[in-house]
Amino acid sequence: MITEKNRQILLASRPRGEPSLKNFKLVETATPEAGPGQMLLRTIYLSLDPYMRGRMSAGPSYAPPVEVGGVMEGSAVCAVVQSNLPDYKAGDIVVASTGWQDYFVSEVAGVQKVDPALGPISCALGVLGMPGLTAYTGLYNIGKPQAGEMLVVAAASGAVGSVVGQVAKLKGCHVVGIAGGEQKCRFVKEELGFDECLDHRQPDLAVRLNAACPKGIDIYFENVGGAVFDAVLPLLNNFARVPVCGLIAQYNATGLPKGLNRVPLLMRDILVKRLTFKGFIVFDYASQIPDFISDMSGWLRAGRVKYREDITDGLENAPRELIGLLKGENFGKKLIRVSPDPTRR
Amino acid sequence: MITEKNRQILLASRPRGEPSLKNFKLVETATPEAGPGQMLLRTIYLSLDPYMRGRMSAGPSYAPPVEVGGVMEGSAVCAVVQSNLPDYKAGDIVVASTGWQDYFVSEVAGVQKVDPALGPISCALGVLGMPGLTAYTGLYNIGKPQAGEMLVVAAASGAVGSVVGQVAKLKGCHVVGIAGGEQKCRFVKEELGFDECLDHRQPDLAVRLNAACPKGIDIYFENVGGAVFDAVLPLLNNFARVPVCGLIAQYNATGLPKGLNRVPLLMRDILVKRLTFKGFIVFDYASQIPDFISDMSGWLRAGRVKYREDITDGLENAPRELIGLLKGENFGKKLIRVSPDPTRR
Repeated sequence: MITEKNRQILLASRPRGEPSLKNFKLVETATPEAGPGQMLLRTIYLSLDPYMRGRMSAGPSYAPPVEVGGVMEGSAVCAVVQSNLPDYKAGDIVVASTGWQDYFVSEVAGVQKVDPALGPISCALGVLGMPGLTAYTGLYNIGKPQAGEMLVVAAASGAVGSVVGQVAKLKGCHVVGIAGGEQKCRFVKEELGFDECLDHRQPDLAVRLNAACPKGIDIYFENVGGAVFDAVLPLLNNFARVPVCGLIAQYNATGLPKGLNRVPLLMRDILVKRLTFKGFIVFDYASQIPDFISDMSGWLRAGRVKYREDITDGLENAPRELIGLLKGENFGKKLIRVSPDPTRR
Repeated sequence: MITEKNRQILLASRPRGEPSLKNFKLVETATPEAGPGQMLLRTIYLSLDPYMRGRMSAGPSYAPPVEVGGVMEGSAVCAVVQSNLPDYKAGDIVVASTGWQDYFVSEVAGVQKVDPALGPISCALGVLGMPGLTAYTGLYNIGKPQAGEMLVVAAASGAVGSVVGQVAKLKGCHVVGIAGGEQKCRFVKEELGFDECLDHRQPDLAVRLNAACPKGIDIYFENVGGAVFDAVLPLLNNFARVPVCGLIAQYNATGLPKGLNRVPLLMRDILVKRLTFKGFIVFDYASQIPDFISDMSGWLRAGRVKYREDITDGLENAPRELIGLLKGENFGKKLIRVSPDPTRR
């Protein structure tokens, strides 16, 4: 069932600071056709993720930015509509880097098949996909959790933080989450099983974090930066590890924070406490995908890892929802349902 | 030959900023006697090292500070004067944490025998001692040098930097040193064999470093901080490693540098370039001492690693020389010759 038109959301202009709706533009184009060695994909779930803010800005990063006038970048769970590829047939479910649009013509490179037997297909963008792999590889390779250690992670109800904390609990760590609002904190403690979850919107985060971590912090999984980082740093123990995965609190910043240059203090802490700070991007650990899928699908089946999705219908709502995501307005893995999920009732 | 008195240099008061002579006090006490299970050591060479500035200040660090009124901490090559220990006899040469004084009564713990066959006994405080081990372990365990990579190290004519650069050259790295003054830079290039050495006292360090590292920097062995770090950071390549060993440029600081808080920029660089920053203290790698002694003594014998010592006679000059060391006035490993070296002509 191919609609006449392919809706696309373009980057209309680069935001300065917080993105606004006018940085995006919805256009309609002809639905493309698959040529030889190609297949036509229909977007079902589009993933919204913090990294997208980076792609909207010019300047060097680990990936080139979206061009102004180009289709917003993004990954999606898709159905194969029509295929000229021997290994794919109509009806197959795949993950591909489609961008923000209804239809996408894809070649083989960069496409992964989704096995609906492993769980709901939307999970291929969350707990069984890039965010889950990010949590798993950053935690294992850099965090190196040991039983009895204290781990802290922010955005604890989100796609990455929720997995970090639950896997750390499976490894025997004490886990303190940080999240925005009472409802998220309750979910993180009661549903996800963290030992504690602190609301960063309430005052005195540093005091409460200190109280929650009386023996200090051994692993801080950094995905936010900003005030949470400032509260964590004094509590890091000797030999603590800090996987640096994201810095959502500063993605919309238009300048540096007020105050003195605290780089010398950070470097002194790294030295005298023998801290490890290590940045990573999920693609650095692509070779660990089979282990990840095996472990995570097992944990999901056993009910040892839980997840929450925050689904909004309609491609046209993706800009608004990304703006909200960057302010922490989502509650769980943010997805846009672009077209009906054929695997759900 | 025991003199009547034991001279000691005490910490008279804690410095604020740069230490001055009035922070030290020379006193004379009776020479102590060795009891059962002890031996009496006579200091020959006292090592002066940047870490001593940290011990003069109160506040948490990886080791407790020297108490005001206490003997300044330090390691020395010593002769055993008299021993009540079965494994030590008069005339043996050892390294011990004597502090800044003529004589020291020691038990077995913390004492290492020095084998004069490996090299001049003073080397046990430099290239074959703590600074050499610092360079070796930090470079190997954190820097992980690969042939063809670019390494940058400051204080390049000093006890640690000179070894870092020479060992990295042995591993096939390109090595750029940074040092203070033309004479040191010439020594680093011509004697130690670095590919380049830049004078940080000349203007435009960042521009010259950029020119010297056209393909960026893969390993930055951090022992200074400050302006050198600021010049290095933009040049770090993806997956660069930064062993954080020392921050001598900020040890005398009384406040934070002027300017904006650049922590968010540093964290962003760590994230998008996947940098590794890891602090270490030489004692973290004590198990690697046998490998280090074997490798380093072999390189010294083969003339593949060279070193330079900067020796000043007289315990009474130790305060002045430490003050100078912190300003980069030494040229090579700084030693105070407290009493004659019985192994030299």
